[in-house]
Amino acid sequence: MQMRRRQFLQAGVAAGAALVGTAMGAGPILAAQPKAGRQVPGIYRIAVGDIEVTAILDGYIDLGVDLFPDAKADEVEKLQLANFAAVGDKLRASVNCFVVNTGEKLAIVDDGGRNLLGPTMGDMPAGLAAAGIDPAAVDVVIATHMHPDHIGGITTKNGAAAFPNAELVVHADDWDFWMSPENLAGAPDFFKPFFQAAQAAGTPYVKTVRKIGGDEEVIPGVRSMALPGHTPGHTGFVVSSGADTLLIWGDIVHSPLLQFAHPNWSIAFDSSPDLAIATRRRVFDIAETDRLLVAGMHLPFPGIGNVMRGGGFKFVPASWTHTL
Amino acid sequence: MQMRRRQFLQAGVAAGAALVGTAMGAGPILAAQPKAGRQVPGIYRIAVGDIEVTAILDGYIDLGVDLFPDAKADEVEKLQLANFAAVGDKLRASVNCFVVNTGEKLAIVDDGGRNLLGPTMGDMPAGLAAAGIDPAAVDVVIATHMHPDHIGGITTKNGAAAFPNAELVVHADDWDFWMSPENLAGAPDFFKPFFQAAQAAGTPYVKTVRKIGGDEEVIPGVRSMALPGHTPGHTGFVVSSGADTLLIWGDIVHSPLLQFAHPNWSIAFDSSPDLAIATRRRVFDIAETDRLLVAGMHLPFPGIGNVMRGGGFKFVPASWTHTL
Repeated sequence: MQMRRRQFLQAGVAAGAALVGTAMGAGPILAAQPKAGRQVPGIYRIAVGDIEVTAILDGYIDLGVDLFPDAKADEVEKLQLANFAAVGDKLRASVNCFVVNTGEKLAIVDDGGRNLLGPTMGDMPAGLAAAGIDPAAVDVVIATHMHPDHIGGITTKNGAAAFPNAELVVHADDWDFWMSPENLAGAPDFFKPFFQAAQAAGTPYVKTVRKIGGDEEVIPGVRSMALPGHTPGHTGFVVSSGADTLLIWGDIVHSPLLQFAHPNWSIAFDSSPDLAIATRRRVFDIAETDRLLVAGMHLPFPGIGNVMRGGGFKFVPASWTHTL
Repeated sequence: MQMRRRQFLQAGVAAGAALVGTAMGAGPILAAQPKAGRQVPGIYRIAVGDIEVTAILDGYIDLGVDLFPDAKADEVEKLQLANFAAVGDKLRASVNCFVVNTGEKLAIVDDGGRNLLGPTMGDMPAGLAAAGIDPAAVDVVIATHMHPDHIGGITTKNGAAAFPNAELVVHADDWDFWMSPENLAGAPDFFKPFFQAAQAAGTPYVKTVRKIGGDEEVIPGVRSMALPGHTPGHTGFVVSSGADTLLIWGDIVHSPLLQFAHPNWSIAFDSSPDLAIATRRRVFDIAETDRLLVAGMHLPFPGIGNVMRGGGFKFVPASWTHTL
């Protein structure tokens, strides 16, 4: 007859059992293991030639379907079902950031929303720590654009630079647009918080900001690519090393569920919707034609993959990389 | 004129700079940040009703295309290109395991290959530690089948149970087949290591093994489902709680790249290839029809998602789960 663990314990051989528990550091071995109750920190690495890119998850955002004025309800439901996504009027999207370590320079592209948009973001400090990255070691903070879910985290709630030794790199057209007191004063009330967030985030970097154009070297191995429309200076960054290339495309896509299938469905707060659509179509075409690896701030974490055609476009998540 | 960090340091304000470095714990702030050079531990959680399931990555295996005798080279290359996978005669597959915490019982389904198949596996002890799971707290070790990449890790290299307080649960047909001295003696030489690995893994559990059938409750919330063909007693496990269901399907798929598109392409070491094909087709049909969430040991980590039809079948990885 077999004697199982609980029978063994019930048989009164408590001393031996306690010894096993102690030796294994398990505490009382009859206690149920508590559930973790939360996801692990989102950290994921890839190699782009000799450059190491680490995706870090700041959190997520639930976008209302009504933020996409051209979206048709029946088509949205069809896409949700086809993609095994929750059916309803919310579209959940990751908020991703990317650390680029060239070996010489340590850069971060976007840093999430801190608490500016509620409690579903703000994991970047914990994520950076889990990834072994000290904010004081970051040389360059690169912003794809100055929306709150991208630059909220670069500044602490006390108004200090979260990256005390870094310069801020951002396209001149974005910096000049969002940092302008006149634009803040002239903005409609619902839009003022976007300017206020950008100005609060940018202020500690006023002395070190490096305003760039749409096609220049940011650091060796990283080049800017103008992708305007979502904001005036919205910019992608091309990471290149050896034969490998990665385009960090910022907010070319806000809802992967909707916009790969329907590139013409723009989000309501594009500064120039027609230009944003043209840019999205152009980038999809380049990415598909060149089989270009892309990384996006709102693609499903880790937000890295390729674009393929077929029924509009479809995002194919990259497989987990086992070795670098 | 802006003064940037390096200019600041070069200006000789070394004392202030050293203070910043020390306060931030960054060490010398001019040193380049070392690259990590390796992937993060593979850990990922989902909730199935009130049950928490944690995928843990043991490593990966590079399967030779020649292990799939029916695979046609031009079609393999077409699939590799269409899926943005490396083109060549190797098919990289994850080796996943799944921890099931019902709140009352802590079970693990498969435990990877230890070092039995080389250095690309064996991460389970580190993965369990990173997930906060003490092997001594595991109540039940469930094996989908007794191949070395599934049960190698349940026993240490010294022949002790890696889960000292757990019973082993395995289908009677698998246990009886692999643990048989006669079957080992009668096996062709190239196949003997499979029996030797199974017997080494099973031996410390001989007194506690619970041999099950193909349709019974293993622990409350987890039920067996006979999926024979890959091995005589190959078994899936259905995790159910509330309205949620997850089928942990073991080795229904070895190469996601090939076998979703071509369910008839069996792997060479199926014990009964025709039965394995029939089982795979049956499970794909059930999963697609019922929109059943599935987890597989060789699907891309974390190995969780849904099956959809279209050009044969296609695996759709589940999106990262942000909240449990």
